[in-house]
Amino acid sequence: MNKGRLIVFSAPSGCGKGTMLEQILKNEDFCVSVSATTRLPREGEVDGVNYYFISKDEFTERIGEGKFLEYAEYCGNFYGTPMDKVNEMLEKGKNVILEIEVQGAVKVMNKRPDALSIFIAPPSINELRRRLHKRGTESDEVIEQRVAQASNEVALAAKYDYIIVNDALEDAVEDFFHVVRAEQLRADKRPEIIADIIKNS
Amino acid sequence: MNKGRLIVFSAPSGCGKGTMLEQILKNEDFCVSVSATTRLPREGEVDGVNYYFISKDEFTERIGEGKFLEYAEYCGNFYGTPMDKVNEMLEKGKNVILEIEVQGAVKVMNKRPDALSIFIAPPSINELRRRLHKRGTESDEVIEQRVAQASNEVALAAKYDYIIVNDALEDAVEDFFHVVRAEQLRADKRPEIIADIIKNS
Repeated sequence: MNKGRLIVFSAPSGCGKGTMLEQILKNEDFCVSVSATTRLPREGEVDGVNYYFISKDEFTERIGEGKFLEYAEYCGNFYGTPMDKVNEMLEKGKNVILEIEVQGAVKVMNKRPDALSIFIAPPSINELRRRLHKRGTESDEVIEQRVAQASNEVALAAKYDYIIVNDALEDAVEDFFHVVRAEQLRADKRPEIIADIIKNS
Repeated sequence: MNKGRLIVFSAPSGCGKGTMLEQILKNEDFCVSVSATTRLPREGEVDGVNYYFISKDEFTERIGEGKFLEYAEYCGNFYGTPMDKVNEMLEKGKNVILEIEVQGAVKVMNKRPDALSIFIAPPSINELRRRLHKRGTESDEVIEQRVAQASNEVALAAKYDYIIVNDALEDAVEDFFHVVRAEQLRADKRPEIIADIIKNS
């Protein structure tokens, strides 16, 4: 069985990342990485499904042991990606999707050059603004903050291997699967194939 | 309209390259490059379709003018890929497939780093041998020559961007289209996209 691929997956807020992931995860070859956090579980959240809930002491200890692929502090709580869980799923042949913001994504890319990185972009910043207004859940001020944040993130999209513009959901999901399949065919990612073809001839 | 992509496409004899191309060319976004040659047309061959038939003098002159993407001499005749015809089709938005053997392919890759290179491989050299025997059109000696040649070519497949194993025709053709679509999404191939998304926001 082939090992799975680690997939770094980022998108600004409002780019339909959640809906895309829902579609992608219907394919059993894919799973998402579950983060560890020191924050308390919210109602309905399940340990090992939404997060691995651990104490601050345990989190700090694991940082010291280098057990996180990346971690960050946010509003006084720690969030991190447990390396062992990711590797376990990869060994099982699953493609592990790491849903992560741009700064963390760059850290992971540096640490794991074998990772495939995909950035989901809006068709345009103006279209993103329209979508956020249409959703109507946030004030104009918050929307402009999100739009500014999205612009900053899009500006860093060149650091990723692929940029998928989410204009129509089905197309974007198809793009995603095309990228993953094509990546499996890259000559530099399959050094063993040439020997396999020639052997015992 | 987006420019097309130059696609270097190689396969050892017996790997089903012809049948694959037939399927691929049903898609109007793709065309094959027509070579120029100094050999005489065979019965039924049409100038501009099978080859551009030109004189030795004209061929030599064009070499001097740097008008070939690559050329080679074979059995006393010249064969070459006319650069202007390829560029014309690319400008029209067509993906131009250059069906070419490994040595010529490497020359083109060096000259045109923008080219996408795809190597079609047999599942194994033994399977290739079986296919050639089954075809029954060649002597054992000729088959072994082809098999040895194929081994040499497969050994150079690492120079290509992608290796597609042609085990089942439909899968190999699908692989091809996945690669081309994914390549259009590579961040390093679309430097303009980020500016496009952010502009006028």
